[in-house]
Amino acid sequence: MVPTIEDISAAAARLAGVAVRTPLLRCDALDEAVGARVWVKAESLQRGGAFKLRGAYNAIAALAPEARARGVVAYSSGNHAIAVSIAAKLFGVGATIVMPADAPAAKRDAVRANDATVIPFDRVRERREDVAAKASGAGQALIKPFDDAMIVAGQGTIGLEIGAEIAPDIVLTPASGGGLASGLAIALPRARVIAVEPEGHDDIVRSLASGARERNAPGVRSICDGLLSESTGEFTYPIVRARLAGAVAMPDSAVKRAMAFAFRHLKLVLEPSGAIALAAALEGGLELAGACVAVIASGGNVDAAAFAAAIAG
Amino acid sequence: MVPTIEDISAAAARLAGVAVRTPLLRCDALDEAVGARVWVKAESLQRGGAFKLRGAYNAIAALAPEARARGVVAYSSGNHAIAVSIAAKLFGVGATIVMPADAPAAKRDAVRANDATVIPFDRVRERREDVAAKASGAGQALIKPFDDAMIVAGQGTIGLEIGAEIAPDIVLTPASGGGLASGLAIALPRARVIAVEPEGHDDIVRSLASGARERNAPGVRSICDGLLSESTGEFTYPIVRARLAGAVAMPDSAVKRAMAFAFRHLKLVLEPSGAIALAAALEGGLELAGACVAVIASGGNVDAAAFAAAIAG
Repeated sequence: MVPTIEDISAAAARLAGVAVRTPLLRCDALDEAVGARVWVKAESLQRGGAFKLRGAYNAIAALAPEARARGVVAYSSGNHAIAVSIAAKLFGVGATIVMPADAPAAKRDAVRANDATVIPFDRVRERREDVAAKASGAGQALIKPFDDAMIVAGQGTIGLEIGAEIAPDIVLTPASGGGLASGLAIALPRARVIAVEPEGHDDIVRSLASGARERNAPGVRSICDGLLSESTGEFTYPIVRARLAGAVAMPDSAVKRAMAFAFRHLKLVLEPSGAIALAAALEGGLELAGACVAVIASGGNVDAAAFAAAIAG
Repeated sequence: MVPTIEDISAAAARLAGVAVRTPLLRCDALDEAVGARVWVKAESLQRGGAFKLRGAYNAIAALAPEARARGVVAYSSGNHAIAVSIAAKLFGVGATIVMPADAPAAKRDAVRANDATVIPFDRVRERREDVAAKASGAGQALIKPFDDAMIVAGQGTIGLEIGAEIAPDIVLTPASGGGLASGLAIALPRARVIAVEPEGHDDIVRSLASGARERNAPGVRSICDGLLSESTGEFTYPIVRARLAGAVAMPDSAVKRAMAFAFRHLKLVLEPSGAIALAAALEGGLELAGACVAVIASGGNVDAAAFAAAIAG
């Protein structure tokens, strides 16, 4: 069942006092650069440094207490891992996280700091779903990163918060598995939600063109480590196809410039994946003139060396 | 006349829709590191990248329209300069800004982007007050950086916003001229407001000990470029003496570690001066255990190279 606005409102009620109601920021330099009224939803300031806590906490809160008590397992490129580790700790249950061996140290360290067990896997040679299935043999509930109604509803709370402050014509959001994009499209039905993907991992761009669920070839071709899923999910793909207004792919060079822009003008630490929607606003060639645009800055978990390299220009 | 809570409320009314109501952020890692409930008032996310817009806009708004029409002049190490340039632009009047020749490029560029005229001066050999007096010969109103009731009232609006969300036992604030510290102490009379200064520029520490208005020797001895004033002002000193609970000086090394902490855990870009109160929370040897502590993160205008060096640790 596709989540409804009511499901998203229920998620918002669960998240009250747990998730940060993140600020919607603007600055003159951004408005001038884009030629529009641009608002940045700073989910980098979310607990755990990324929006993922919303879905993960909502999904764990929805488990039956006796299932939850057995602990949870998750596979994630990093930010969902951090989110599950925080939510599990808040509920006082164990968490086992399957993470790519090449995940940023900042993300791995954050998961370990929340007492979760990290199981590394090879992003190219192993399927994380398989490793997670093995790890969850002990009956732990699998908290999927995006392909789940409770996850979509949780991420959709971002849209509710945006809608309470502004009425965006256009929403630009990082997208990979489609959980966040789906939640935003449901929460903000009057806005044109546009998915932004890394070049080389543009399955949504291709899916919207072909009408079929496209996949990305294995391999890492972008610095956007949080946006490298093979494709949208079985659950999220129909929502993405039916409700998104479009999709655009951005090169790493534009992502780095967006990180530098956010550093200089917004004073935000954004990770590459978290800056890609801002990159699309600044350099995506989209028709934004005069519009009210909401840009999702989805996360800020980036290693110091990578950040320094991006802002050095 | 020392501003009252009513004066600060009047400033808040003038600032509505102009200044950002900045978020009060917390994170588990900070609470654990300090052993207290710590809230960070992120004035780095303020328009212009620092708290200074509050006082500058309030002071310019309070000018008689015919005086304001002649334009304004200001001297500033940077953030007040940016703030005056923004406020002048909003009122559609000219601004002339006297800035140290060694001010960070990020600050100088921001002032020029707002169409203000920059007059550089030598921080060691010239008194900025004299240069500004010469520049204001044309009858432009001087907008002082701190030594003025309207400035103190404007900066005090930060305290009102904090008090609307939490009831802090202790407030740690960067301090130099004393405008922000004075405003906070008036707005939050039940809190113990503690000034944090750079080592080598610790006139408030010495003033509170001696009972006289102490001065710093000329010269630059800290990376905290926004906290290098010669002393508190004639107007602010009595407020500082009467209302502050204490003061502490922090070395640059601790400031850099605080910038790295804010990068890693809070995802905030803080300039050195903006991170010094956080440095005091983390390493200042203050008795904070179990308290509710508000930390003012006053600004985020820092050059990329300086920021990269700080977070590289």
